[in-house]
This record gives sequence, structure tokens and C-alpha cells, in this order.
Amino acid sequence: MKKHNFNAGPSILPREVIEDTAKAILDFNGSGLSLMEISHRAKDFQPVVDEAEALFKELLNIPEGYSVLFLGGGASLEFCMVPYNFLEKKAAYLNTGTWAKKAMKEAKGLGEVVEVASSADANFSFIPKDYTVPADADYFHITTNNTIFGTELKEDLNSPVPMVADMSSDIFSRPIDVSKYICIYGGAQKNLAPAGVTFVIVKNDALGKMSRYIPTMLNYQTHVESGSMFNTPPVVPIYSALLTLRWIKAQGGVKAMESRAIEKADLLYAEIDRNKLFVGTAAKEDRSRMNICFVMAPEYKELEADFLKFATEKGMIGIKGHRSVGGFRASCYNALPKESVQALIDCMQEFEKLH
Amino acid sequence: MKKHNFNAGPSILPREVIEDTAKAILDFNGSGLSLMEISHRAKDFQPVVDEAEALFKELLNIPEGYSVLFLGGGASLEFCMVPYNFLEKKAAYLNTGTWAKKAMKEAKGLGEVVEVASSADANFSFIPKDYTVPADADYFHITTNNTIFGTELKEDLNSPVPMVADMSSDIFSRPIDVSKYICIYGGAQKNLAPAGVTFVIVKNDALGKMSRYIPTMLNYQTHVESGSMFNTPPVVPIYSALLTLRWIKAQGGVKAMESRAIEKADLLYAEIDRNKLFVGTAAKEDRSRMNICFVMAPEYKELEADFLKFATEKGMIGIKGHRSVGGFRASCYNALPKESVQALIDCMQEFEKLH
Repeated sequence: MKKHNFNAGPSILPREVIEDTAKAILDFNGSGLSLMEISHRAKDFQPVVDEAEALFKELLNIPEGYSVLFLGGGASLEFCMVPYNFLEKKAAYLNTGTWAKKAMKEAKGLGEVVEVASSADANFSFIPKDYTVPADADYFHITTNNTIFGTELKEDLNSPVPMVADMSSDIFSRPIDVSKYICIYGGAQKNLAPAGVTFVIVKNDALGKMSRYIPTMLNYQTHVESGSMFNTPPVVPIYSALLTLRWIKAQGGVKAMESRAIEKADLLYAEIDRNKLFVGTAAKEDRSRMNICFVMAPEYKELEADFLKFATEKGMIGIKGHRSVGGFRASCYNALPKESVQALIDCMQEFEKLH
Repeated sequence: MKKHNFNAGPSILPREVIEDTAKAILDFNGSGLSLMEISHRAKDFQPVVDEAEALFKELLNIPEGYSVLFLGGGASLEFCMVPYNFLEKKAAYLNTGTWAKKAMKEAKGLGEVVEVASSADANFSFIPKDYTVPADADYFHITTNNTIFGTELKEDLNSPVPMVADMSSDIFSRPIDVSKYICIYGGAQKNLAPAGVTFVIVKNDALGKMSRYIPTMLNYQTHVESGSMFNTPPVVPIYSALLTLRWIKAQGGVKAMESRAIEKADLLYAEIDRNKLFVGTAAKEDRSRMNICFVMAPEYKELEADFLKFATEKGMIGIKGHRSVGGFRASCYNALPKESVQALIDCMQEFEKLH
């Protein structure tokens, strides 16, 4: 039976990325060696990092003066690297959910944090809009997509101070105006690669301004100066990332990814709004295109477990909602085909007919 | 032509580990999904982490009261995590080479560091033996194997204070008395897995004693309490690590690995000592079994490039020495078959006959 992978992350990747990674693991570039056992300093691997960096810059239209890094540790490590590198006195954070809170917690360990707004009282079902970012903040941190609560900032904000963004779960799903940010980071395990590599886009001239001691590995300058090769980088995940970047380019780039994301999200939200059994959990204007969260309508609440079983038997994978929201979450990352969204809609309609 | 992989790291892994990783990337456990796109919270993946942890404990005979962690970031990140978690006032370090120096540098950022001894003046060609570890140090840090200079501490030391060891490049090559250490860590990309996962063996009751603020991701307690699942772990490298651990067990465990390592190292060092063209660089009693460093004898110095070309043409990979030592380095990790060592010896003998 065909499986439809709605996992929230690690999550679906293009089939050719998977197959070409497996091939390189058996034999990398006809070298007679596995991708798993080549040196990161090998002549064959430097072009992988170089091309991945170049494609990042090309696909996201990154201006001059920025570096692209491929690191280990995950976005959770970035939560503390960001304040280490950019928080001298005060930082502003927009609290839109679990990941924003975690980012804020690490900043509080190193300086003053202003929470400019929060939707915690509404279980993060919307993105706050009316707030003021202090003009004397070192940066304004946002989480562009909230994987758990299914809300998303689908346009770049305006801010009186430079922005820092966690784009773990929506990078490459729309064009970004990178010039508004001094740092954009994310775990790669949604739209880019298997788990194990973290991308960082950092403005070079924003670095080197802190008065505090920064451990070498937490200092972005270390990695900028060594082209992500200060220590052994995660070779296999970086190679898979390169394959995904090539795939995005071949599909037409981030504009094409955005059109596909809008088309898939519109289809699924339309069914959620139409089907009497289900209701969406996020405010309509803030609905995420990446993580589509919905629950049973109050009068059908007792059918939740039944629908999960029904859909799972039809090949839907990973649609159980996060425990903070309950219900269901269909993650519709770049690599998820429209057919999978249609298959889920078919499930919802069949299930509706049964009840 | 058969390739002989003497890479210093990332480096050779057992062929079955490579092939079974490639299979799981195409289809993990018959799930219809790739290992690259399953959730780390999936029912199928928890047993991978659990079994890897259990095999670590079994193979290294780890006593009760220790945790085994699988993290991202590399041993270079551990260089700062160690002092964050264990250095309250003063730490002792044995300076045996590049990696020891890097570890010391990060500790100096957080407290007082006593370099108990150093072989820097002799280009780290031996491991210092006569020194005193201050009895009031919080810990004594050693680097058991020095990948670049080819020296190795092949037995556990005695120390008046708890030890911390970087075992990146010789873990699983001999039995260890883990009870002497509060922390043993290493990048996995030598004897264990592809690059991208870091192992940490940590004594639970040594944690939680620092007065300083520790960022969440740098705090070992975070990872102990969440069973390496605080954030998304590097799924693919962890799975490969599990396969290698199974392979080590099937080969007879670390005792068998040690016998093989001794046999291979003895063969190659015997040839280095016999062959008039070559000389070893490390003091005989400190010679590493993992990284065997040698240079041309002074009177044949001009043949260095010729031998590298000659050996490369015969399928030897990664034998160029690190620039700090020059000459050649044959890394003979667990997965390197004796046949590869023999092939290199054949090269050395053929080359000798030519000159």
C-alpha cells in the first residue's frame, strides 16, 4: 500500500534525494568508497559544500555579505548561539509557541529579553500583530512557522531592529527578503535533509561585536572563517541537502515551492472547512501551509481515535496532532505530493459518509 | 581496483554497515518509508536508540550509574561542554597534541586550567609520563589517541581526581575501565559511524554540581533526562552506529578488536622499522594502533611525493600525513581489514626494491 508521509519532522524528502543518497552511500562518485567513509577534506567533498552554499544563495536570493553555514547540533543549539553572538544588552522575542519559548529561554540566560507579544493565552492559535519592538533591542527574534500549533508568518515583517528568524520548518517554501535579517537558522529535517545538519544564514558584518567570551564552537565567526569545516561536518546530511537543493531548483525554485504549498494548503483547508466532522485550530489568517492542524468538531469528539485508525489503515503516516493541540496535524512540506493531500481528503470524505 | 581506505576520519566502516544503512535509507524496517524521513519519535526508532545504548554498555562493560548519549555537534562541541559541566574552579589537562590543545582552550574560557605536562617541544611525538595531577583539580582531561601525531594511551591511567577522556579515535579498540572516568566522549566518525553523531558516556552523579549558568543544550543533564531525545537527534548516523555496534559484538567484542588492532599495528610498524626507506615518527612505547605515522628516512626524503603517488596508484587511500607531521599516516581503525595493511606493506616493499 502506498504510504503518505505527513510526518512533522524528520519528514518526507523527494524520492530521488533518498535514492541518490543511498547510491552515494554504496559508492560516492564512482570513487569505490562510501559517502559514509570519505574524508570531509577530500577533493570530492569540498564541491558538495560549495555547491550547497551556492544553491542556498541562488535559491533564496541572498545578498552579498552573508555566509551560509552547515553545522551540527540542531536548531536547539542555535537557540543559545543566537544570543551568544548577537545579544549584548537586550533582545526582543515574539512568542508564538513552543519553539519560540525555547529560543527565548536560552536568550534569558545571557541578557535581557523583551517578549513583545504572546498568544500563549489562546494556546498559540494565532500570531500576535499589535506590538512594538523596542528600538534599542539588539535584534528581534521570530519563529516563522510553528510546527506544533500550525501558524505561520507567511511574509517578512518590518522591524526597527535587525531580525533573527528560526525558519526550521518553512525554509524554501517561499521567497524571503534576507536583507531584513542578520541571521536565519533552522534544523534541516523538514524541507531540506535528514536530521543531523543545521543551516545558518548569517550577515558577516553583524558578527564580532560582543563583549562576552564565546566558546569557539558557538561563535559563528569560527564557522564563517572555516567555511563550515572547523570540525568534521555531518557529511551524509549535507550531501542529501545538496540533492534537495538541486531538486528545488529543478522544480522551479522557491516561487514554485510557494505555489505548490499554497495549492496543497488551500485544498486541505477547504476540506477542513467544508467537512462537518472537522475544524481547524489556527486563526484563518495565520494558518500554516506547512503544518495543517485540525481537530474533530465538538459534536464528533468521540470519533478522534476512529479517524486516526481509519486514516492510518489507508496509508496516512504521522497525522496524529502534537499533544499540546490534540487532534490531527498534516505536515505538507515541499516534497509532499499533491496526491498525498488528495488521499487524505478522500479519507476525510469517506469517513464523513460513514458518520 | 580494490581500494584500501586508510582515511583518518571520517573513515572506513564495515561493508555490511554501509550496505545495511543504504537499505534502510531505501526502506526502513519494511515500513515503506526511508530512514531519512521517519520521525525520531516513531515507535520503530526508539528501539534503535535503546539497543545502541545497551550495546555501548555491554561492549564497554559500563558500570551502573552512567548514561550513554548520542548528540550532534562533534567532539569539538564537547571541548566546551566538558568545562561547562565539570569545571568549577580548576581542571588539569595533559597536552598531547592538537585536539588536547583545542580542548584546553575551551576550558580556559571558563576557569583555571593546569597543563600538567606537554610534549609540544618534541612535536608531540611522545606522551609525557612524569607529572603530577593537582589533587584539588575538578577533573583530569586526557586525549587517549592523537590522530595527527600517532601516539596513544593504550591503558587507563591512574589519577587522584576523576578523569575525562576524548576517545574519538580509539573508542572500541580496547577494553576500558569506565569507572575511572566521569565522562568519555568522542566524534563517532572513526570506529563507530559516519560523521554527524557524538557519543558521550557520563557519570550521572557527577552532574548538577556547577554554580554557573549552563545553556540547555550544553548541559549533559538535559540529554540524560531526555534519553538523547531533547531535540531531534541525528537519526541516520545513530542507526549506522547501532549497526557497527552489532558488528563489533559479532566479531567478539572489544577484546577481539584489540587483538586485531595489535596484530595490524605490529605488522605495519615491523615493516616501518625494517624498511630502509621509512622511519616512524612516534616514540615506540607510545605508538598508536589507530594512526600509524611514518616519514621517509632522511636520506630518501626526496622520494616522499613518489611514494605517495606509487601507493595511491595501487589503491591506497588517505595515507598522506597531516601537515603538522608530514610524510604518511595509515589509519588502521577497527573496520580496516588486515589485507589492507598487507597491501600497504607490499607497496612499501615494492617501492624499496625500486630504490
